[in-house]
Amino acid sequence: MTDDNRLVAGIELGGTKSIALIARGQEIVEIARMPTAQPAATLATLAAQLDAWQVEHGPVAAIGIGSFGPIDLDRASADYGRVTSTPKPGWAGVDLVGHFARRFAVPIGFDTDVAGAALAEQRWGAAQGCKVAIYLTIGTGIGGGVVVDGTPVHGLVHPELGHLRVRRAAGDAFAGVCPFHGDCLEGLASGPAIAARTGMAGADIGEDHVVWATVAEEIAEAMAILMLTVSPQRILIGGGVLQHRQQLFARIRTRTAELLAGYVVGVGVTELADIIRAPGLGDMAGPLGAVALAYRA
Amino acid sequence: MTDDNRLVAGIELGGTKSIALIARGQEIVEIARMPTAQPAATLATLAAQLDAWQVEHGPVAAIGIGSFGPIDLDRASADYGRVTSTPKPGWAGVDLVGHFARRFAVPIGFDTDVAGAALAEQRWGAAQGCKVAIYLTIGTGIGGGVVVDGTPVHGLVHPELGHLRVRRAAGDAFAGVCPFHGDCLEGLASGPAIAARTGMAGADIGEDHVVWATVAEEIAEAMAILMLTVSPQRILIGGGVLQHRQQLFARIRTRTAELLAGYVVGVGVTELADIIRAPGLGDMAGPLGAVALAYRA
Repeated sequence: MTDDNRLVAGIELGGTKSIALIARGQEIVEIARMPTAQPAATLATLAAQLDAWQVEHGPVAAIGIGSFGPIDLDRASADYGRVTSTPKPGWAGVDLVGHFARRFAVPIGFDTDVAGAALAEQRWGAAQGCKVAIYLTIGTGIGGGVVVDGTPVHGLVHPELGHLRVRRAAGDAFAGVCPFHGDCLEGLASGPAIAARTGMAGADIGEDHVVWATVAEEIAEAMAILMLTVSPQRILIGGGVLQHRQQLFARIRTRTAELLAGYVVGVGVTELADIIRAPGLGDMAGPLGAVALAYRA
Repeated sequence: MTDDNRLVAGIELGGTKSIALIARGQEIVEIARMPTAQPAATLATLAAQLDAWQVEHGPVAAIGIGSFGPIDLDRASADYGRVTSTPKPGWAGVDLVGHFARRFAVPIGFDTDVAGAALAEQRWGAAQGCKVAIYLTIGTGIGGGVVVDGTPVHGLVHPELGHLRVRRAAGDAFAGVCPFHGDCLEGLASGPAIAARTGMAGADIGEDHVVWATVAEEIAEAMAILMLTVSPQRILIGGGVLQHRQQLFARIRTRTAELLAGYVVGVGVTELADIIRAPGLGDMAGPLGAVALAYRA
């Protein structure tokens, strides 16, 4: 797109770490990572970083903020731009957009981090040309962004794909770790869920451990749900759980094809290899998501 | 909208009955119903009906076709406008748009009957002003249309909400009646599923029959899935199963709220009374859906 040569800033607020960057298109000019600590200190540090970069590189044309959720995306709401009901201590109600809007006189784009990542994948990554694209992260938590016709889906609020109640794998009686739902997808297949299931850190679990079959099957249930609800051309799965377990993709696709049972024409295991994939932007989908949100601002 | 005074035609092709109508906006000028028989005869009768009405009322500006699915909605496809993999005898591969395009020199809108119904509800019915709206029919089959920002969602294909694999109600071991999936939503909660569960025609089943609790619970699982995937402001449920069982709505909402467990802010049982409702256009959502598709053509 023609405006990709403008310098913009991105802020990705994650549950455990946050990232500030400035970029021209997908070319990252500067990037800095920091822990997501108390809100006032974290936001002040992020803003100070942008100040410093603007002194060196000149002013940014816009700022994009991709945040962990839930967040208020309704521009007609008094709480637009704020974190809403997060269990993350100190962050409920924090005014993210307001913080940056008061300090920087530029347009501010705002959405979930995963909606940003889906946008970035559609703009620069593995979902180019796709009318419907989903970015799902499976890590400390599970979240997903849904982009339809180039725009993140916002209805009443925003998608919360991590909390889908999927059908359980046969014989799997693990209670789940989600504080709200117990055995929703996040409760069953997130990093902490896998650690609780096995008593091991993820990196220590062998490839042949039985937990992977269970987790792949339950993730496949979510894949089938997504195929049937919005018929995405891509479901890109990022996050730590699959990043070093690429062989899980094959299991997930095979099981998804079994679940769909040939009903959706042209969505067998061959086609699913194109649909269910790792993000084209890899680790950078989230930060570049904030950049994509800046370009939309 | 300003063009609602133009005379247009609608064709709703259902699995068992089809409807032709001409209308100005939501004002129906003429309407005719017929069984959905063999394709050649059915389509010829529908076209002849439009011919006759045009002699009497003048030419229509466009035709909208809302069809049972699956159908090919990809304008770049050689099979655009056709039914694809239906198990309905004789109908697989039938060129619906081609039939009317060859006979009538007007623009033709085409989508699933349920996407049309969702559009009509957004334009004239209970989903006005909603960014994300879903129309779900629960009858002989189960199908759903998803409208985002005024446009039906088309990705790889179109939504197939009837085939969602929902989590089963505790103790429910019914095998389901879907020829593809067994116990998907349609296999569990459609009219034929309820008849197979009880050995009774729907109208003969008492209000206090245990089947309603099971079916309401499994429909609620689908409601929770829809809230979490696209965050609709409305899910309007039409079709025969709930039409004469309005008390099921309360059960479905209560269970949906339990399943969401307060995670989605502002979606408790009170709010769900606004969200999960009967169609505002009642029985006419489908036929007016075809009319809405004509206005978009």
